[in-house]
Amino acid sequence: MSEVAVSPSAKAEKLDAADELAALCSEFVLDDVVYLDGNSLGALPVGVPGRVDDVVRHQWGELRIRSWEESGWWTAPERVGDRIAPLVGAAPGQIVVGDSTSVNVFKALVGAVRLAGGGGGGGGGGRDEILVDATTFPTDGYIAGSAARLTGCELRPVAPAEVPGAVGPRTAAVLLNHVDYRTGRLHDLPSLTSAIHAAGALSVWDLCHSAGALPVGLDEHGVDLAVGCTYKYLNGGPGSPAYLYVRSDLQERFDSPLPGWNSHADPFGMSPSYAPAPGALRGRVGTPDILSMLALEAALEVWEGVSIDSVRRKSLALTDFFLECVSAYVPEGRVESLTPAAHAERGSQVALRCADAGSVMKRLIERGVVGDFRHPDVLRFGFTPLYVGFGDVERAARVLGETLG
Amino acid sequence: MSEVAVSPSAKAEKLDAADELAALCSEFVLDDVVYLDGNSLGALPVGVPGRVDDVVRHQWGELRIRSWEESGWWTAPERVGDRIAPLVGAAPGQIVVGDSTSVNVFKALVGAVRLAGGGGGGGGGGRDEILVDATTFPTDGYIAGSAARLTGCELRPVAPAEVPGAVGPRTAAVLLNHVDYRTGRLHDLPSLTSAIHAAGALSVWDLCHSAGALPVGLDEHGVDLAVGCTYKYLNGGPGSPAYLYVRSDLQERFDSPLPGWNSHADPFGMSPSYAPAPGALRGRVGTPDILSMLALEAALEVWEGVSIDSVRRKSLALTDFFLECVSAYVPEGRVESLTPAAHAERGSQVALRCADAGSVMKRLIERGVVGDFRHPDVLRFGFTPLYVGFGDVERAARVLGETLG
Repeated sequence: MSEVAVSPSAKAEKLDAADELAALCSEFVLDDVVYLDGNSLGALPVGVPGRVDDVVRHQWGELRIRSWEESGWWTAPERVGDRIAPLVGAAPGQIVVGDSTSVNVFKALVGAVRLAGGGGGGGGGGRDEILVDATTFPTDGYIAGSAARLTGCELRPVAPAEVPGAVGPRTAAVLLNHVDYRTGRLHDLPSLTSAIHAAGALSVWDLCHSAGALPVGLDEHGVDLAVGCTYKYLNGGPGSPAYLYVRSDLQERFDSPLPGWNSHADPFGMSPSYAPAPGALRGRVGTPDILSMLALEAALEVWEGVSIDSVRRKSLALTDFFLECVSAYVPEGRVESLTPAAHAERGSQVALRCADAGSVMKRLIERGVVGDFRHPDVLRFGFTPLYVGFGDVERAARVLGETLG
Repeated sequence: MSEVAVSPSAKAEKLDAADELAALCSEFVLDDVVYLDGNSLGALPVGVPGRVDDVVRHQWGELRIRSWEESGWWTAPERVGDRIAPLVGAAPGQIVVGDSTSVNVFKALVGAVRLAGGGGGGGGGGRDEILVDATTFPTDGYIAGSAARLTGCELRPVAPAEVPGAVGPRTAAVLLNHVDYRTGRLHDLPSLTSAIHAAGALSVWDLCHSAGALPVGLDEHGVDLAVGCTYKYLNGGPGSPAYLYVRSDLQERFDSPLPGWNSHADPFGMSPSYAPAPGALRGRVGTPDILSMLALEAALEVWEGVSIDSVRRKSLALTDFFLECVSAYVPEGRVESLTPAAHAERGSQVALRCADAGSVMKRLIERGVVGDFRHPDVLRFGFTPLYVGFGDVERAARVLGETLG
């Protein structure tokens, strides 16, 4: 009973004082806004503006073309990939950065169908089906539709929980989101990957809403291919390049549908015939986008010495505390949490169903609490453990309560 | 005879004095280097660093997620496309910026095959052949190979001059470079486009080495689709996003192989089924890369009030004068120009075949003349009319003569 007696604000103070990641908020440009939209666009790391200015003024402006070698531009896609690798549980040499998430979903899915020996169109007996998370962020479904059409496969939407029953001898590849963008539900990557493998199919995981917020364990769980963006919990900046993971033992057979010159074994040989490079860089396509790529590289430096397990602990504490404060502050029946209560099923966001959610979010933003609205009736709040504190959480719930009161 | 008597350096002075674009060099960050590699990476426009800094510190750092609307991030791909449009002879609403050139070649070629009602794999009687410029920059050929494979077409490399004889009832699409990256040869876009149309096929032009250096006339010549990069004569910065042109009357039937959520008619409706947006934005894919996109937008401001015809006049004067100075300074027989003498066949670069070209270029760079080396024996010099002067040209040829003397 003593716990109930402690006010949310007093509890927030205690939790902030005990927060082992609290000092990291000085690595970000913050203000008096409670920013709970880092699951859409991460805040600006303080090291980024200076780095970008150097890339523009010195590397581009002064060294110009020499920077492709001297400033390490050419090798940035793999180098930055290796910076992301430990955050998603991957050994070096398996991640390459570049292009958008959508483009990487396309590479991964067509590549997976080919790795599975699949594809229809008169193949006869081959695997000719792609399963896709029916609750996924839409772009994955649209791109999966195109990958299916171009490889002669059939696309079948299934709820993630139903994948073990749905995956079968016809299935070439399964595309799943690790965390549902809308509800914040965390799917069981290890067991779903196992079920996919048991059926002889390949798994493609979209890590957009999990990377940087919780442990992924790509290598540990034997994931085949994965993609993710870098502008959410990785704070790479608006539209910063996405990444592609191809497990090392699959790389030699990975056959990209976008074999641009950057993925050639000898890109400056300018040979008319294509010969793919070994390793992760086989996933490259065209000239890498250097300004954004190096802004991302600078942004990733805040992770130096940060354990993803402590990030996960704080993330769960933040979402637990938010749900607790919402119970305390928001009148009964005004919101309903779509985010699972069980830790094993929760990402790093809380989605609340709420009547008139669009205008409620507008009022929250006017009062300095920034989340976002997802059509038709969802308030979405993302909790980035690197820069969100428990006091922020208490204030957000309190303002929400006042707005709905 | 009197002209012969004038020394190259005196002539350079005269030409510089009469140069109507001379003042534009103050729009770029230049130094005492003669930079003849703007056909690979354009120099830094002076307005870019400040703009990028504002995008990073203010738009991202302070407004954060609000900038998608308030700073015009969301509409940037079409807005920046409309900035490029007049430079390539396109009315507004037909160009969208984003992704790499390679990715856009893929969209354009698969889209063109579909527009032609083509594609093999049991279609029966459909157009099932893609012609590709055999002398092209390699990535176009590699990507064309993938587009052909995925649409069930056959890929046939042909020299551009042979296209009129090669294009036929089986041809769905023809991919050509406007200017050959190696020799600097300008291909005859109007007549080749006509020949392609006469055979009922679609033309896809790669403008990487012509846009910003000479008039293209996309609308005037009825080009179907086109792509180009923005980091050469458009000075957008390293790896800045490329663009896709789809002629307005084809847009409604343009069926992209990369139908990401950004190209949806209602992107925030998050509908599980795909419905393409009208207009140029049907060519979008994923979240646009904002830092690079807005750096490019700032870079394009230098074109305000600049006519592409005057750029072309100066470009030809620069390459004429360079060839003249090379004749005057370089010992007979040491270099051979691969760039056509006829203006109608010349882009904005000069390629010289030269024994030991790799080490010759190294020595030129050490002496402050920056061009580039293309395997196996080519010295490439690009002339950007916006910031290269005739004095630069004379110095480059003189240093080349001394290096080879």
